Amino acid sequence: MPAPLTDLSRLCIHTITTKPWSLGECIDNYTAAGVPAITVWRQALAPQGAKESGRMLRESGLRVTSLCRGGFFPADSQAKRQEAIDDNLRAIEEAAEIGAPLIVLVCGADPAKPLAESRREIADGIVAVADAAKAAGVRLGIEPLHPMYADTRSAVNTMGQANDMAERIAHSHVGVTADVYHLWWDPSLEAEIRRCGSAGKLFSFHVCDWRFPVRDILNDRGLMGDGCIDVPRIRGWAEESGFDGDIEVEIFSDKYWSLDQGEWLSKIKAAYLKYT
Amino acid sequence: MPAPLTDLSRLCIHTITTKPWSLGECIDNYTAAGVPAITVWRQALAPQGAKESGRMLRESGLRVTSLCRGGFFPADSQAKRQEAIDDNLRAIEEAAEIGAPLIVLVCGADPAKPLAESRREIADGIVAVADAAKAAGVRLGIEPLHPMYADTRSAVNTMGQANDMAERIAHSHVGVTADVYHLWWDPSLEAEIRRCGSAGKLFSFHVCDWRFPVRDILNDRGLMGDGCIDVPRIRGWAEESGFDGDIEVEIFSDKYWSLDQGEWLSKIKAAYLKYT
Repeated sequence: MPAPLTDLSRLCIHTITTKPWSLGECIDNYTAAGVPAITVWRQALAPQGAKESGRMLRESGLRVTSLCRGGFFPADSQAKRQEAIDDNLRAIEEAAEIGAPLIVLVCGADPAKPLAESRREIADGIVAVADAAKAAGVRLGIEPLHPMYADTRSAVNTMGQANDMAERIAHSHVGVTADVYHLWWDPSLEAEIRRCGSAGKLFSFHVCDWRFPVRDILNDRGLMGDGCIDVPRIRGWAEESGFDGDIEVEIFSDKYWSLDQGEWLSKIKAAYLKYT
Repeated sequence: MPAPLTDLSRLCIHTITTKPWSLGECIDNYTAAGVPAITVWRQALAPQGAKESGRMLRESGLRVTSLCRGGFFPADSQAKRQEAIDDNLRAIEEAAEIGAPLIVLVCGADPAKPLAESRREIADGIVAVADAAKAAGVRLGIEPLHPMYADTRSAVNTMGQANDMAERIAHSHVGVTADVYHLWWDPSLEAEIRRCGSAGKLFSFHVCDWRFPVRDILNDRGLMGDGCIDVPRIRGWAEESGFDGDIEVEIFSDKYWSLDQGEWLSKIKAAYLKYT
């Protein structure tokens, strides 16, 4: 077991976790609650734009952990794959504007073609934007998604695949984002997290819990302690292999979004100290 | 690509696929439709018991491919694990009574303990019943389940894990059941199916499709052709490595169960010849 988290110094919350709040409300409430870091979803930037969002974030003193999300590279035509690349280049600009050192990649999948082909298009897409990311001082984290999302959201579904892809791309600014929700079931998880961390490629780390029975495959994630994921154990593997970055709480949950978000934020802080 | 299926000679349907029908109705309708084989779920046996079910099946001339399902070995006490073993011994008797040469094992998982521990309890449970299965002339197929079922349904979630487990147990009557629904996303699937087939351990093969967006993680399976699984390609891997058994249609679907089941049976036959 890793050292317990005894303070909030590494706690990062994703704006999507408190989806009912605007970016301004996230900033005000996280700051007031002593949450030091934020990961910004692009829809939270949209209303005021990246430049103004960057100004708000710098003024707040919050640490920006990452921008969510780039990716979605596979598509059924060259023109659409180019559109995806262009959108990722815009995300890189936005990340630079808000001071985010990392973009999380939800890589995409085209259900009309073999997964192996989607995987090639993902690697091609990442290669196409990696130098621009480096020039902007932004890293890219390949996030393996749970196999239940292999139809349209990501053809990268295990830590082993993400490690293989990052290794083949071999670019200073391309690494991996690990999220316990997607990975907890995998018997090779410990070995693959250690492989990633030892290679200096574990760029970020997301937590939540797997509650059951699952009511909805998209928006029914649990808060740490709600389900069956041994989060501290997985965090321990990451930290033993060198990870010392923020612990990011990313939870899509119709149930929790329906709560008063201030009350929800208190629950998150408590669960972070107790079950993470 | 494998040889197309040009007739129904290897078509097997699971009683659960036409859940609204009793065993008697399944027998009558499958026979009338030229379906030569049936896999019987235990709830379809319950109303008339295994003996009478066996008589009905023998009289029908249908080939019984397997009995679904045994397993669910992990539990939070020794007494409950023994209950699971006893229940699997009863399933072996039932299989023998209905002339089923195979029981499919949905192995189970206890969300209160680490997956590695559930996996040990699964292996122990299988070992505890394997000799009784052999004595009854019944084989046991470890069915890896999709990782989205790792909370309570099965801690065995990939073909690689099932192969490893069958290899370690090393018993003539313990092998693997492959179901495309659970496995299609796995980048190591081809290699692991070939490994299984070459070892003579691929005991049975289930088909359906992964439709999307997923409306329900339990009862929203697609008919072959409805989704993104390349069923013929996966069947080809199985057959190239020696599998020549029945192709079993196992579909849990609130949508299809709500149809007239005769109409549904016609759809299954058409999809079997076109997309399987």
